[in-house]
Amino acid sequence: MKTRNLSLASIPEVKVNDKVFKQRIEACYKATIPSSLKQCKETGRIDAFKLDWKPGMDKEPHVFWDSDLAKVLEGVANILAIYPDADLEKQYDEIIDLIASAQQPDGYLNTHFTVVRPERRWKSLYHDHELYCAGHMIEAGVAAYELLGKKKLLDVVCKYADYIDSVFGDEEGKRRGAPGHEEIELALIRLYKATGNERYLKLSKYFIDERGRAPNFFVEVEGINDWDVINHQAHILVREQTDAVGHSVRAVYLYSGMADVAALTNDDALFQACERLYKSITQKRMYITGGIGSAFWGEKFTKDYDLTNSTLMYAESCAAIGLVRFASRMLNITGDANYADTMERSIFNGILSGISLSGENFYYTNYLELNDTTGFYNFGSRERQPWFHCSCCPTNFCRFIPEMLQYVWSISDDELLLNIPVANSYKNKLGEFEVCGGYPYDGKITISVKDSAKENLPLSIRIPGWCDKYTLAQNGKSVETKPENGYVKLFVNTGDTIECNLEMPIKVMRSNLKVPSNTGRIALMRGPLVYACEAIDNPNGLINMIIDKNSSFELVKVDGLPEETICIKGKAFYEQAQDDALYTDKTFDQIPGEFVAIPYALWSNRGDTNMSVWIRSN
Amino acid sequence: MKTRNLSLASIPEVKVNDKVFKQRIEACYKATIPSSLKQCKETGRIDAFKLDWKPGMDKEPHVFWDSDLAKVLEGVANILAIYPDADLEKQYDEIIDLIASAQQPDGYLNTHFTVVRPERRWKSLYHDHELYCAGHMIEAGVAAYELLGKKKLLDVVCKYADYIDSVFGDEEGKRRGAPGHEEIELALIRLYKATGNERYLKLSKYFIDERGRAPNFFVEVEGINDWDVINHQAHILVREQTDAVGHSVRAVYLYSGMADVAALTNDDALFQACERLYKSITQKRMYITGGIGSAFWGEKFTKDYDLTNSTLMYAESCAAIGLVRFASRMLNITGDANYADTMERSIFNGILSGISLSGENFYYTNYLELNDTTGFYNFGSRERQPWFHCSCCPTNFCRFIPEMLQYVWSISDDELLLNIPVANSYKNKLGEFEVCGGYPYDGKITISVKDSAKENLPLSIRIPGWCDKYTLAQNGKSVETKPENGYVKLFVNTGDTIECNLEMPIKVMRSNLKVPSNTGRIALMRGPLVYACEAIDNPNGLINMIIDKNSSFELVKVDGLPEETICIKGKAFYEQAQDDALYTDKTFDQIPGEFVAIPYALWSNRGDTNMSVWIRSN
Repeated sequence: MKTRNLSLASIPEVKVNDKVFKQRIEACYKATIPSSLKQCKETGRIDAFKLDWKPGMDKEPHVFWDSDLAKVLEGVANILAIYPDADLEKQYDEIIDLIASAQQPDGYLNTHFTVVRPERRWKSLYHDHELYCAGHMIEAGVAAYELLGKKKLLDVVCKYADYIDSVFGDEEGKRRGAPGHEEIELALIRLYKATGNERYLKLSKYFIDERGRAPNFFVEVEGINDWDVINHQAHILVREQTDAVGHSVRAVYLYSGMADVAALTNDDALFQACERLYKSITQKRMYITGGIGSAFWGEKFTKDYDLTNSTLMYAESCAAIGLVRFASRMLNITGDANYADTMERSIFNGILSGISLSGENFYYTNYLELNDTTGFYNFGSRERQPWFHCSCCPTNFCRFIPEMLQYVWSISDDELLLNIPVANSYKNKLGEFEVCGGYPYDGKITISVKDSAKENLPLSIRIPGWCDKYTLAQNGKSVETKPENGYVKLFVNTGDTIECNLEMPIKVMRSNLKVPSNTGRIALMRGPLVYACEAIDNPNGLINMIIDKNSSFELVKVDGLPEETICIKGKAFYEQAQDDALYTDKTFDQIPGEFVAIPYALWSNRGDTNMSVWIRSN
Repeated sequence: MKTRNLSLASIPEVKVNDKVFKQRIEACYKATIPSSLKQCKETGRIDAFKLDWKPGMDKEPHVFWDSDLAKVLEGVANILAIYPDADLEKQYDEIIDLIASAQQPDGYLNTHFTVVRPERRWKSLYHDHELYCAGHMIEAGVAAYELLGKKKLLDVVCKYADYIDSVFGDEEGKRRGAPGHEEIELALIRLYKATGNERYLKLSKYFIDERGRAPNFFVEVEGINDWDVINHQAHILVREQTDAVGHSVRAVYLYSGMADVAALTNDDALFQACERLYKSITQKRMYITGGIGSAFWGEKFTKDYDLTNSTLMYAESCAAIGLVRFASRMLNITGDANYADTMERSIFNGILSGISLSGENFYYTNYLELNDTTGFYNFGSRERQPWFHCSCCPTNFCRFIPEMLQYVWSISDDELLLNIPVANSYKNKLGEFEVCGGYPYDGKITISVKDSAKENLPLSIRIPGWCDKYTLAQNGKSVETKPENGYVKLFVNTGDTIECNLEMPIKVMRSNLKVPSNTGRIALMRGPLVYACEAIDNPNGLINMIIDKNSSFELVKVDGLPEETICIKGKAFYEQAQDDALYTDKTFDQIPGEFVAIPYALWSNRGDTNMSVWIRSN
């Protein structure tokens, strides 16, 4: 395999001036981070590291608590890299000190298995979250070091990783095993990249290769059912896997680590498995919003084309976040814009839907339809919540929201890719670049090369998969180069101006006819944005609405949404019954009217209301 | 309240000559009963009554085993009342002897709580099935006596019921309690009617009144959660209940007992509760097939209009059977044909769908749509199965299939109601009557009064709710009487001939617009029959099918179904995509073609195939 050797942009190098990322990142700084730290304090997730919990006391450290705090800390590092804040930094340092104090002499670091069930250390990799927590702590340590130059947590996690490496492996005296909840694989790669210590790359590769290896560790040692190990992607060797199966967050975390290892070890078989699994997800098991894992029970992938929109659907926020991480790794290996299309789809739709504009409330489940019958099974509330017992999603948002900056660009030693052209300035080793425009609401963007570190620097501009028609001009001269893998490669110099117009008409989208839930229905998209109708804007009803696809749609503003938000208005028919019978042979009247659709990610920001992405059409 | 004091026909008094009931009852005799007895033997359900199970042995008697055998025995009694069979009767008598031998000196009779967990007798009414098993054994005892004149099992169950009555009640020294799985309420009424012993009526009424009474027994004594008792209809007093909630089989068994007690005790409040609950079911929570309980998890009612057709749906066979029992009781109180409409809807559609034409295989779940994505949650097989670990449905079919004869007529001391006009002859205390015709495939029926025990006997003919147009003539003279409560009341004498033509055009049915699953879809009905499209007859696809409702439909025969079966053919369009993209902005082609629909109850009798009741329409 051949890798393009690209990396994502580094958070502090990208300053956004746009209307979507900027607002979201500010809300993360002002609301998400403080409220998450407060929740970690109040629920006991911070004080657990004092290791003074005793049986009978409340706030018993849970197996996944460490991961929550680690994710918040990683988020704090991301945010501090954007907004220096002495008070926040002090709080951050104190928590790191506390965590460091909880590390055991052998390097072990886990509150639950130190104070609650010490006898179970490494005994239940399948069900418990020991290596998962370790992975998140490692990521937090790497972020502290790379973004803030703080070495204390890095040293802690290196010591912990060294200890883990002394426990697991094929070598004599080590035990076999792989995490039940994947995460440490990708974390070890980050640690390897931050430290250069190949031990971590090797350990990550071990965990990946061990997964599904016969005799199956989970089955033989931990007594998991043969047919249950598929839920954690451990039914066969990862290189042989073809369908994205099981718990969807675990799956995409694993695939991210696989892609990392494939790139670093030039492992073509592993890369091909990643390609297959990516196709399985994006061609057969992904919502139009970029959400994945359609089953509430088990938070799982189900079957090809099983993408129900309501009662039982899931599309966990964390899963879409993980998909972006996986896709970004594949993008950096291949330079193929299809991966950036997926990243963009999930970010602007199925991920940002998971967090309120205020940054304070979160969806675990990202419904595509909320109606009066929704929610019998999925006991989640109709509105976003500030925290959950299992609070993986809010804490993931702490780190993901600032992390969005990374995905704007990819960079290597000698080239640059503009992935998501939100307004931003990007200063890096190759120069300084500014993107202006109103993306994602406007496809007109201007790229100014403020400073290029070398002549004729290759700068590739992504032409999104949704864009059928565009114009591109460099210094006023039309560019005739055709896109390759979805990117138009230009060669730029200091002072260059590139003008790009990605036309974004409203598109009437349909699902593959194998998706039973969506037949007869359309969804509206404009540019990368998926639209949804909320009952609050459509008082004549949603499930009785039939969009007149032959009418012309217009772009409108809707009260109560951020000023720049572009919404869609058009004609619709509203079915009306002649009576209230449950079943009738009477025909329905079709009353002509209008509909209004808003960007899906912004739904449920104006109170409790029904919503639908897929609407019937004539 | 005023009751019409009607009863259902007695099984031996009705001889059917039709093409649906007769075939089904024969299959029950030839296949269902023998295979169920065999399963009861092989699984240990019969030998459990030897009471020789010891810890460590296999075939540990399960808490619901006794009920399965009791239901099969009741089915055998029903069948023997139709088809005398010495071999079957011998087997039946031997099983009864064995059961009688297992009765404890105090009257107690339960295999599980005698040999497996004797210390738990009456300790867990909510979760275990002790009183439920007792109820089914009582029903078996009554059937043995009433249909075959056999008193042994009746004596056993009287002794058992007397013992139960000595245990439960409000009187000093008795304990409070009500069944977690209702059933004994209606069984005790049957026992009361068979014996005249008011003790059983009183005990039934006690169980009904106890349910939900504060302080809640299940909560206070058994430690069930406050919010969990709703699953067993014990959240408030039954008289105050308005929505059909919780486990659907338990619900309709309870409501049946409530209707019985209301009629016998002239309890208007109880009757009104029954009316409310019946409306809750039939106006908001019932499939068009008469199936109820839409949630796979918990086998429950969910929310109004939550009637999904596939992935998570349930519509347990037993629940539809229980609904018929409940509706029949309401019919006999009121003489209102709306109840007979529901009985007929469930019998011809959502109940007969649960059993193969051969009588050997059963659905627990009665899907309204089976497609390639169905079945991730509901682990049931796509095809009917011969038996289940929890085998309530097959054993319920043993008794229900012959029981269908009962529902054909209602009778009191001085009047007769023809509820379901399948071809049959009915000889009873009021005379002898013959119905000819091809119902339910043909609406033309002829009723001959072979013998009337009195002059001008009131005979009421049901004009089904689905029938908009009919003609009725008595002895060649057109009858002008309008139907009252859905029945036209005639006064007949020996030798009279009544000719009735219930027109049954094909009807295009729609769901209430509050049912999200069915918007934009139609179902076809003809007479009482709901139709469904099977993939085997529609090779161009089901979920991409759009029925052209403006085309004329024709009645056709379809190979592989019983000869008399009338199917429907018409025009449809088949959507075809231009590529295999998961989401596309390309339009679909609509290829004109035809569709074929068969009676829903007959689906899945020609191999594994997809199916749908609700189909899109233009």
